[in-house]
Amino acid sequence: MPILSRKGINMPESPIRKLVPYAEKAKKNNIEVLHLNIGQPDIPPPDNVIRKINNFNINSIEYSHSAGMEEYRTNLSKYYKKINPQINKQNILISTGGSEALSITLNCICDPNDEIIIPDPYYANYNGFSHASNVKIVPIICQIENDFKLPEIDEFENRISKKTKAIVICNPGNPTGALYSKAELEQLAHIVKKYDIFLIADEVYREFIYDQNKHFSILNLKSIQENTIIIDSVSKRYSMCGARIGSIISLNMDFINTALKFAQARLSPPTFGQIAAMEALKTQPLYFKEIIEEYDKRRKLLVNGLNKIKGVKCPMPKGAFYCIAELPVQDTEHFCRWLLEKFHLNNTTVMLAPAHGFYSQKNGIKNQVRIAYVLELKKLQISIEIIQSALATYNEDQS
Amino acid sequence: MPILSRKGINMPESPIRKLVPYAEKAKKNNIEVLHLNIGQPDIPPPDNVIRKINNFNINSIEYSHSAGMEEYRTNLSKYYKKINPQINKQNILISTGGSEALSITLNCICDPNDEIIIPDPYYANYNGFSHASNVKIVPIICQIENDFKLPEIDEFENRISKKTKAIVICNPGNPTGALYSKAELEQLAHIVKKYDIFLIADEVYREFIYDQNKHFSILNLKSIQENTIIIDSVSKRYSMCGARIGSIISLNMDFINTALKFAQARLSPPTFGQIAAMEALKTQPLYFKEIIEEYDKRRKLLVNGLNKIKGVKCPMPKGAFYCIAELPVQDTEHFCRWLLEKFHLNNTTVMLAPAHGFYSQKNGIKNQVRIAYVLELKKLQISIEIIQSALATYNEDQS
Repeated sequence: MPILSRKGINMPESPIRKLVPYAEKAKKNNIEVLHLNIGQPDIPPPDNVIRKINNFNINSIEYSHSAGMEEYRTNLSKYYKKINPQINKQNILISTGGSEALSITLNCICDPNDEIIIPDPYYANYNGFSHASNVKIVPIICQIENDFKLPEIDEFENRISKKTKAIVICNPGNPTGALYSKAELEQLAHIVKKYDIFLIADEVYREFIYDQNKHFSILNLKSIQENTIIIDSVSKRYSMCGARIGSIISLNMDFINTALKFAQARLSPPTFGQIAAMEALKTQPLYFKEIIEEYDKRRKLLVNGLNKIKGVKCPMPKGAFYCIAELPVQDTEHFCRWLLEKFHLNNTTVMLAPAHGFYSQKNGIKNQVRIAYVLELKKLQISIEIIQSALATYNEDQS
Repeated sequence: MPILSRKGINMPESPIRKLVPYAEKAKKNNIEVLHLNIGQPDIPPPDNVIRKINNFNINSIEYSHSAGMEEYRTNLSKYYKKINPQINKQNILISTGGSEALSITLNCICDPNDEIIIPDPYYANYNGFSHASNVKIVPIICQIENDFKLPEIDEFENRISKKTKAIVICNPGNPTGALYSKAELEQLAHIVKKYDIFLIADEVYREFIYDQNKHFSILNLKSIQENTIIIDSVSKRYSMCGARIGSIISLNMDFINTALKFAQARLSPPTFGQIAAMEALKTQPLYFKEIIEEYDKRRKLLVNGLNKIKGVKCPMPKGAFYCIAELPVQDTEHFCRWLLEKFHLNNTTVMLAPAHGFYSQKNGIKNQVRIAYVLELKKLQISIEIIQSALATYNEDQS
């Protein structure tokens, strides 16, 4: 047998997918599984996007420009101009989802063994992209006790080494729902400027902000304009996960031109997805208003419901559509598997994501889960009841 | 200014795209540019695919399985079963184009500084993928004098080191049009078995074989079943470049399961492209018959025409839709740029790809071009006349 690479053998498995076989088995046994484990929104894409797709009238399927269709980049630049008027089409590179946006970015700024600092917990696939690029993640733990707020600035500075190339944040955050304030980001800017490293912000959940808060984009950090890189995607914004369209935005043209070389090697992002994503730019504000109201209701129902369960602690998220909850169990991976294998209430169970997959191994937290509130209120209510009932049974079972 | 990575700074630029700004300038000056530089076929996709796309009737745009839609993999396995009946859906991983298929494969089998052996010249983007994965390409020069046939087996063996993880071939070949015989591939199998390394074959041009020859896939090398990996794509087969759908096929399940971990990190391949690619499997054999006849006519017209020009030498390709021609100039990069900047015949010029971008730097060949015969016969005839006339003028100009 030929030998695989250490990179391949040690590639971390997605924590979201690990329990999938158990969910499939449950379904085979006629158990309904409510999926709170993955950020696949049940919200439909905007009507105009669906109409556009269902009325495609094409006669060829050509490569687009490697940086993405020029018309799409031009139209997309108008979206970002509302955040920072300096953004033009040449500051944008269209990628195959936010995933590729981050992979290309890491390749542009990191050589093997270079380091990036990330508040922990973080989107689990950052592990995969870093591992594939031979980049080391240096985590800074955030505490559930203070709502996963951005760690103190000293914590960042203490971790900066000669190999540090960037600080990576997700704002608002997957998996925590934390929202970083302008003041917090300005503090980060100070460090970024001092050490002249990059600040990468995954802002794919930018539109999903609650309680009348406003999102502050790092594109507005004027003092570090050449240091900021945005990772973006249409997947969650318009419920278009399968289109696989993301983007990289930066005012640093050396960076963008370098990213373009990686983009050229893979030829182009998907053409159909770009056509759909360009249409999505015409989506009316009412679409977001309604969705945010819906997510807001779900958020309150879920988080308030969870906090009423004995031993459960769940900070109220301020953005995105995830929360992290601490459960009164020792090992949520075991509990989540048990939920799929051994438990059901009226032939229904829930699939949750053990949160330790979202923490760096070093900080290995074992008693938390990530919950995506991507299901309708009725199903969320049932989910809360299932979790409550399951926890009681589980702790009895285990004792 | 923050510092980019050496990886980013040294990332090779696509040789196909390098001259694009000069082509754009020519077009602005109302010069028609005939694009023989890029493998974007002018052949339309199959009618059934176009019909499918123009009759999409969807209401959501979800992630697919990370390995690709199960139904697509099942149907696609029937295509590969015709080559090797052992191929099942679990031996297939759907990728975002052939590009991602090769990137993922390299990550699965190579650690930084590992080596892959490739007959030279080769598809230029192999440089990009290898560079991005910190993998070193060890080239073996093929000679235009003997029609770019596979180098002697000793040449491969001489280059195998402890760091060699694979031999990579493209069969039939881009950029040379060479077709490797069963006997040649069995010789490769012998080496692959002896050193227990991988044999990766990019077979995206499998359908395009001329002169009643038959394609022999490495999937049929029974003695090295665990060592073979196929890189494939719908881009050229069905003229669906923009769909961005490719695949990895292997009977080595350890390898496929490792590839799946990389695939999971980027979530899923494009959904629309998969739907279109699944439809493409229903394409009637007549579609290929007609296309192959068309490419065959173009091939003969072009290559015979080129060989009639004084000082031009062009082996007759046996597959794919490219050829490499030696021109009576010292530096084809200069000549190709001159064609766009300084020359036109009846307000028309041609864009060719300097072949040195397809050779490893070490073997730097400067007097060859790669020509893609992706234009209709009339345009190819005009292109030949332009090249003939241009060479005469150019050599006068330069002397």
